[in-house]
Amino acid sequence: MTQHSMFKIETVAPKIRRVTFTNPPVNVVGADTVVQLLAVVDELSKDEKFQVVVFDSGTPGYFFNHADLGQVPELLALNAADGTPTWVELVTRLTSAPFISIASIRGRTRGGGDEITLAFDLRYASLEEAVFCQPEVAIGIVPGGGSDRLARLLGRDRALEAVLTSEDYNAERAEKYGWVTRAVPDAELDDLVNTVAARIASFDKASVLGAKAQINRSTLPPVADLRASWAEFAESVNWPGFQARVPQLGKAIAEVGLDEIERNLGYYAGLINQQA
Amino acid sequence: MTQHSMFKIETVAPKIRRVTFTNPPVNVVGADTVVQLLAVVDELSKDEKFQVVVFDSGTPGYFFNHADLGQVPELLALNAADGTPTWVELVTRLTSAPFISIASIRGRTRGGGDEITLAFDLRYASLEEAVFCQPEVAIGIVPGGGSDRLARLLGRDRALEAVLTSEDYNAERAEKYGWVTRAVPDAELDDLVNTVAARIASFDKASVLGAKAQINRSTLPPVADLRASWAEFAESVNWPGFQARVPQLGKAIAEVGLDEIERNLGYYAGLINQQA
Amino acid sequence: MTQHSMFKIETVAPKIRRVTFTNPPVNVVGADTVVQLLAVVDELSKDEKFQVVVFDSGTPGYFFNHADLGQVPELLALNAADGTPTWVELVTRLTSAPFISIASIRGRTRGGGDEITLAFDLRYASLEEAVFCQPEVAIGIVPGGGSDRLARLLGRDRALEAVLTSEDYNAERAEKYGWVTRAVPDAELDDLVNTVAARIASFDKASVLGAKAQINRSTLPPVADLRASWAEFAESVNWPGFQARVPQLGKAIAEVGLDEIERNLGYYAGLINQQA
Repeated sequence: MTQHSMFKIETVAPKIRRVTFTNPPVNVVGADTVVQLLAVVDELSKDEKFQVVVFDSGTPGYFFNHADLGQVPELLALNAADGTPTWVELVTRLTSAPFISIASIRGRTRGGGDEITLAFDLRYASLEEAVFCQPEVAIGIVPGGGSDRLARLLGRDRALEAVLTSEDYNAERAEKYGWVTRAVPDAELDDLVNTVAARIASFDKASVLGAKAQINRSTLPPVADLRASWAEFAESVNWPGFQARVPQLGKAIAEVGLDEIERNLGYYAGLINQQA
Repeated sequence: MTQHSMFKIETVAPKIRRVTFTNPPVNVVGADTVVQLLAVVDELSKDEKFQVVVFDSGTPGYFFNHADLGQVPELLALNAADGTPTWVELVTRLTSAPFISIASIRGRTRGGGDEITLAFDLRYASLEEAVFCQPEVAIGIVPGGGSDRLARLLGRDRALEAVLTSEDYNAERAEKYGWVTRAVPDAELDDLVNTVAARIASFDKASVLGAKAQINRSTLPPVADLRASWAEFAESVNWPGFQARVPQLGKAIAEVGLDEIERNLGYYAGLINQQA
Repeated sequence: MTQHSMFKIETVAPKIRRVTFTNPPVNVVGADTVVQLLAVVDELSKDEKFQVVVFDSGTPGYFFNHADLGQVPELLALNAADGTPTWVELVTRLTSAPFISIASIRGRTRGGGDEITLAFDLRYASLEEAVFCQPEVAIGIVPGGGSDRLARLLGRDRALEAVLTSEDYNAERAEKYGWVTRAVPDAELDDLVNTVAARIASFDKASVLGAKAQINRSTLPPVADLRASWAEFAESVNWPGFQARVPQLGKAIAEVGLDEIERNLGYYAGLINQQA
């Protein structure tokens, strides 16, 4: 097993692995994260012994957070030999992976990190700890794929609300909107994840993957849409709206600290726009 | 700004407008309403300063009500030069408009008026005052587009229940079914609408509209379906079932009064069928 | 009216029929059930007097249960002259039938029986008595169409959870996920079903069927998908995973009795996999 600095892969049962994402201080998703996670998915996909992979976080307060704004050029430069953006490859590989991915969500899940989370098969969230947000519009860009998945789960108006307000959503509303599979009290989350993981791991792998393929056939966004959204995101980082908001965000971080901003990004993303 | 007898357009903040629909006594949607509203959408679309438009009602008890049965021929005669029904043009222009529309819903929202409401981007409803209904089937016709949108939001069975029973739905169930974005106590509705409007208005317009376009790509019904539904509606007004029910409805209005009928249309639409 | 040993057809009102499915001891769906139900649908479709059909069960504790594992070869051998699997014909005929079908659900609704139930137009469930499950994956096969419909109603992740865990779902969660139209206290179920049936039966048939066709246009899975899922199911019964689990299930039945197994199939389907 290769070492990936941000991802720890453990075998928790004969057919179950746990992948823990740790990128302190706030678990942002950078170009390096994407490269490592794709390698992890690749490894997991080749190992036929496993059929369930639980994804969790090693950074308290954060699950998969938004993209690292300091690595946007590197993120946009990642492309496969055939021109497919690596990001699109990552999320499509996840949804079609030959294992079942279960997100155990404690903490903030935002932007690109939310898009990765939406590409997992099952999403279980802590009522006390999980927070969901697509912050792109508040900082002057557009999502690179989150719209495509949210629209299919939440319906047009609720997806518009989530994406257009860039607001932080708690797990209770996220469950009501269909953003997560279930939200449960934090004390029950591990039991729920472990029970579902153990159950699916006990079943015949051909059946598990055959059923997943059936549901994928009915629910996945067209890859062309994912590519289009990614291209729109790539273009939007050149817009003046983004160029003007990044320094505002930097100023806010300098004033109140990164930790405070990241804890309440929905609030501060609103604030920098009011001041602009 | 042109004058429209039924629509009052106010500027409530530098980037926010409010459009108030007032067509007493019960806010029916006539051919005149469609012509005026399309002109309003046209004007709002051309004015690049604005990015959020709140739609509300000036007639207590009613939001956008059903089509005016006295103006059906006029409504069906409205077509663009290329043959597109003006109705289809109105609802498609609304969903693709270069601003975010937010419905602030107090009162009855039915039939064609519900179809307009379903074409707005966000729908916030008063738990005490909002009522939703597609009454077409009860009066012997079919919807002219509401089915297409409800089916995508509610799922097959709940859309069938709503459309086939022609029943009045309260805001609590409407929220549960996904017919509205959120239902809140009446006392909190203005705050919710104003907060969401101000937040979206503070963001970069290119981002707001870019994100809306992404979600539209995933969720809008094909225009061909909207045209088909409109043609089916147009045909259905010639059916004997409709011809027989209109006088029954007229008789009921004569007996208990228009106000009572409109307040409880779900009930009376059922009653005239039992008596038929 | 032809006699069908498993289906009793009653006229409960001038335009309403009730079809009661009774196949003791546990209402499994066999090849014989499919042939009879298709004949019933055929008869009901030809009789223009009726416009609502209520489907219920005459076997306490069970609605339409899973496929009869003893009749799988017979089930797979059923094909129309043009090669269409009779199963696909049955569920597509139900969704496009010239009447409105309402499921009155008391008891366990699983697998193939759940797929039939998902092909009905409206689903009303007893909170105390109704249970839902797609048990295929737990016994080493894949669903033959349930995935296609669940995915459209529940969304990708919740459909994956339901199908991949093969767990028993109570009516409260089924309603929350959109698996049923409404779940109500058992004491209120008959009133709800009768009220909705009577209301729809009182309306103009052309309108009722015209509106149903509009919603079908927006929501039905492509027939090609249903055929594909059926072919995948047909292939999966040859998989070693299924061949190994059938005797395990037989052993469990021998040990604790068919009644106990069927009451808690979700639990025992898990148990035989843990022991395997």
